[in-house]
Amino acid sequence: MNHEADDPLETAAQVAGFMSQRDRFAQSLGIRLVDLQPGTSRAEMQLRPDMVNGLDLPHGAAIFALADFAFAAACNSHGRAAVALSMDIHFLASPSPGAWLEAEAVEVRRGERTGLYHIRVREREAGIVADLHGMAYRKQDRFLQGPGDGR
Amino acid sequence: MNHEADDPLETAAQVAGFMSQRDRFAQSLGIRLVDLQPGTSRAEMQLRPDMVNGLDLPHGAAIFALADFAFAAACNSHGRAAVALSMDIHFLASPSPGAWLEAEAVEVRRGERTGLYHIRVREREAGIVADLHGMAYRKQDRFLQGPGDGR
Amino acid sequence: MNHEADDPLETAAQVAGFMSQRDRFAQSLGIRLVDLQPGTSRAEMQLRPDMVNGLDLPHGAAIFALADFAFAAACNSHGRAAVALSMDIHFLASPSPGAWLEAEAVEVRRGERTGLYHIRVREREAGIVADLHGMAYRKQDRFLQGPGDGR
Amino acid sequence: MNHEADDPLETAAQVAGFMSQRDRFAQSLGIRLVDLQPGTSRAEMQLRPDMVNGLDLPHGAAIFALADFAFAAACNSHGRAAVALSMDIHFLASPSPGAWLEAEAVEVRRGERTGLYHIRVREREAGIVADLHGMAYRKQDRFLQGPGDGR
Repeated sequence: MNHEADDPLETAAQVAGFMSQRDRFAQSLGIRLVDLQPGTSRAEMQLRPDMVNGLDLPHGAAIFALADFAFAAACNSHGRAAVALSMDIHFLASPSPGAWLEAEAVEVRRGERTGLYHIRVREREAGIVADLHGMAYRKQDRFLQGPGDGR
Repeated sequence: MNHEADDPLETAAQVAGFMSQRDRFAQSLGIRLVDLQPGTSRAEMQLRPDMVNGLDLPHGAAIFALADFAFAAACNSHGRAAVALSMDIHFLASPSPGAWLEAEAVEVRRGERTGLYHIRVREREAGIVADLHGMAYRKQDRFLQGPGDGR
Repeated sequence: MNHEADDPLETAAQVAGFMSQRDRFAQSLGIRLVDLQPGTSRAEMQLRPDMVNGLDLPHGAAIFALADFAFAAACNSHGRAAVALSMDIHFLASPSPGAWLEAEAVEVRRGERTGLYHIRVREREAGIVADLHGMAYRKQDRFLQGPGDGR
Repeated sequence: MNHEADDPLETAAQVAGFMSQRDRFAQSLGIRLVDLQPGTSRAEMQLRPDMVNGLDLPHGAAIFALADFAFAAACNSHGRAAVALSMDIHFLASPSPGAWLEAEAVEVRRGERTGLYHIRVREREAGIVADLHGMAYRKQDRFLQGPGDGR
């Protein structure tokens, strides 16, 4: 079976459906996948009152979660299962309470076993909140698999 | 007022109380501060069924959130407000579903305006899950402040 | 004295002259500043036979040195002295022996005390070699100073 | 052929010899491998007058080069060729001009295809200069190979 599918757009659409249905942590944070194309993605999340830290500021880990989801969608968009090896996040500005945040992930390079992605988080109609790199390890398994299809 | 308090242990204890009461995002994830000393901290969290990603694995963003909380506690432990400039996370092993995770943050260096922390996440009675660096920017404000004490 | 100069282009030109004359390590590696505008820079270097590692591949530390120089030029381009807090480098492809490498640094955000830069290293007429983030700490001193102007 | 050699100490000793002889960039900077054990290494370098940046401070890229060499030695010490995927460096203090710097690399985790290393650079008889993580990708090839043993 060819894991790099013949129809990249169809594969990305299927991955988008799976990610949206199955990433329970993202669901619990209200993260929504807005767009998924081969190698790129956009996701959004509205900051909630329970997403603050001890200084009463929007929580860095919530911002990270949104970026991480966009990264996961982009690096799995080709249909092969990919997991994060490392991520670095740079916090640039504290978003407003209740703000809508948007994350966009772009593939910088995809090799046979690893891939690098650049992810940027913005506050809607405002500036950059965080800038990240994510390095993915690409497994041999398909991301998309039916029940009982063991890894 | 001297922001580097005369009694570091007492200050750390007060910061611990504030962090535990006020970090609502950490609370929502069941993160608990186990110990806070000047410059070092330990925190723990049990992985929940809703903390999985699209591959049904423990979610990297949940692991990050635990490490981020330990980092925040350690870099605020001296009583001056500190915010994250950047963090890098390296994912080393996928923890077991339902596992208890422990994060330990250690101060590598504290300067006048910045500080570097090393954070390690382990699965209890098992190996290393993730290894991080966190760089903090130290504000002039106190972390601990009463109502009306504007920043 | 206003450290953010009235004429940003003139300041950048002066910084470019200083960087080119005074960065002796960059000089020893044959690194050349191609362009410096406020917040952005381009630099180039040709890989030499003595820039290989134990596997006989172009050396990661030489690639880093080129990126670091572009970063330093960009973050000092406004006339205030800036030093690196942290950098992360992602190696994407091994360049050809003897290749000309080009690094471009772009300012992602400049705050009062810190700034974030994105740096990309390419092989001329080929693909991306490395992708980096650099975080700078901005001092109060001017970068440009005459003899006897102590820091 | 079993790439994880039967005698780890003997393999590390052979790798040490190769690294010392063949890393020409490290040689040009006067970097010396002090010790190599399976998974750990120590290297040293004396800062030279030509290792300064535009601010006349010890050059970050020279400090990086020393850390990178210690990392390369440690991740190749098991006899399988390993290349850097990514590194992050945090600059903590500016060393004295002419100082001897020592880098120590420690293996945090070694998997089948990737490995994580922690590297710390100190000024001899002084404090920490820089703290790094390095992520390596482990190839199938041996690091040590005779002539004609193609990759």
